[in-house]
Amino acid sequence: MTGSKESARAAGLRERLEVVLVSPRNPLNIGAAARAMANFGFARLSVVAPYDAHWREAQSAVGADDLLGAAQQVQTLQEAVAGCTLVLGTGSLERRNPEQTVLSLPRLAVPVARELSSGGRAALVFGQEKRGLTRQDLALCHALVAIPTSPRQPSMNLGQAVAVCLYELSTRLFEQTADADWQSGAAAAQLPERRTAGASAARLEMLEAVIEETMTEARYSPRASHASNNHDLKLLLRRLALDEQDARRILRLFRRILWRFSHVREEN
Amino acid sequence: MTGSKESARAAGLRERLEVVLVSPRNPLNIGAAARAMANFGFARLSVVAPYDAHWREAQSAVGADDLLGAAQQVQTLQEAVAGCTLVLGTGSLERRNPEQTVLSLPRLAVPVARELSSGGRAALVFGQEKRGLTRQDLALCHALVAIPTSPRQPSMNLGQAVAVCLYELSTRLFEQTADADWQSGAAAAQLPERRTAGASAARLEMLEAVIEETMTEARYSPRASHASNNHDLKLLLRRLALDEQDARRILRLFRRILWRFSHVREEN
Repeated sequence: MTGSKESARAAGLRERLEVVLVSPRNPLNIGAAARAMANFGFARLSVVAPYDAHWREAQSAVGADDLLGAAQQVQTLQEAVAGCTLVLGTGSLERRNPEQTVLSLPRLAVPVARELSSGGRAALVFGQEKRGLTRQDLALCHALVAIPTSPRQPSMNLGQAVAVCLYELSTRLFEQTADADWQSGAAAAQLPERRTAGASAARLEMLEAVIEETMTEARYSPRASHASNNHDLKLLLRRLALDEQDARRILRLFRRILWRFSHVREEN
Repeated sequence: MTGSKESARAAGLRERLEVVLVSPRNPLNIGAAARAMANFGFARLSVVAPYDAHWREAQSAVGADDLLGAAQQVQTLQEAVAGCTLVLGTGSLERRNPEQTVLSLPRLAVPVARELSSGGRAALVFGQEKRGLTRQDLALCHALVAIPTSPRQPSMNLGQAVAVCLYELSTRLFEQTADADWQSGAAAAQLPERRTAGASAARLEMLEAVIEETMTEARYSPRASHASNNHDLKLLLRRLALDEQDARRILRLFRRILWRFSHVREEN
């Protein structure tokens, strides 16, 4: 989690990572890349030789992030990465034998953290949608980042590739930089432990229905509270981490209670 | 990495994870979600109450993946998740105080691995682009998955959110399962997480007594089974991670049932 709790040190590291888009064609993809940057707390964007009309369209799109307006526009990848000490090309590796070191994205945080925290600047470079980075582009990269995708559909959409890379870096890079307690309480939360698979959603629905009926029969609450009681019951049943056997046992008990209700009648 | 090196076991687990899109509006987002699924090797997609025209447009789009054609189309979230044992809602947490356990995406692999490998099925549920999942939708979820985004721009594009979640799961869950010993995570098993202090032992005793009495009154089981039922009940109550409020609520319901039993009498 970025934000107020993030340390100045982590924010400083964030500032030293740049995203570079080489000749992006689709304004929607440019916007999506910018949005992912904003989502994960990165602000430095460079665009190399964009198609002018598309670039202007992306910049003027409704909801376009400030960072599109502040983006650096240059003519060559050389210019874009001139100040960077670690240049990382991205792409699927299906079509070529890479000439560089290949880093799998899940392993990227360690080398990038090392580079940034020793005062370096890193660039994450994304190629044009169709053809990716050229061999010439790749020759400017220190390493290639491979996103581990399926061989059946290896090629990712540009905006999604940017999102996945920045998620990985934002999450694992700053996790490593000790003092950043951007990990909120949410991070530590665990689901309740079960020894076997949980009860199915259909089973929980069944349980919910029979407990509701019991509540009605027992006149548990006034009619006006039924909806909110039902909502609470839904939450409760899912919080309890019931396994299938538990769920069946409880179901049996409530059915028995209902059966009992139906075989007795009011005394007065 | 999916593909030839992936074990049959890992492929089997992949098959037990479903993606559910609730009322998606934008055909491009539906297509992007499907593409991310294909990129990360997942095939089971359900779409709940889609806008018909948009759904047809997404299905017939050039390059639409086979999995869009094979997607399950249902009218309610209940139907979509009926067979699932772990239902995970996604979304930004900015607008509401979540009523469920919140799991940060980077910590999701362990509980999902546990569920799938013990024979369960998990659903990852994404809400409509604008409003996300409703409170009613969330009441069907066991936990909420929070993608750690910046508070300044917390809300992700749907296709990008799907990509990021599936990247995380594919990478950390299945890459590990292929090489087996992800189960060491089980060694790090946590006590069930509660947002508030748990119910006291005294409270659980009280609950146990009143449920036992109800079982007797309802003639749940023959007398010979009482001892073993009582033992199972003790175990169950402690496994459920009840907090004080849950315990009181359940106590109230069973007292009400007992009260009701005492105010009615046998019909014959």
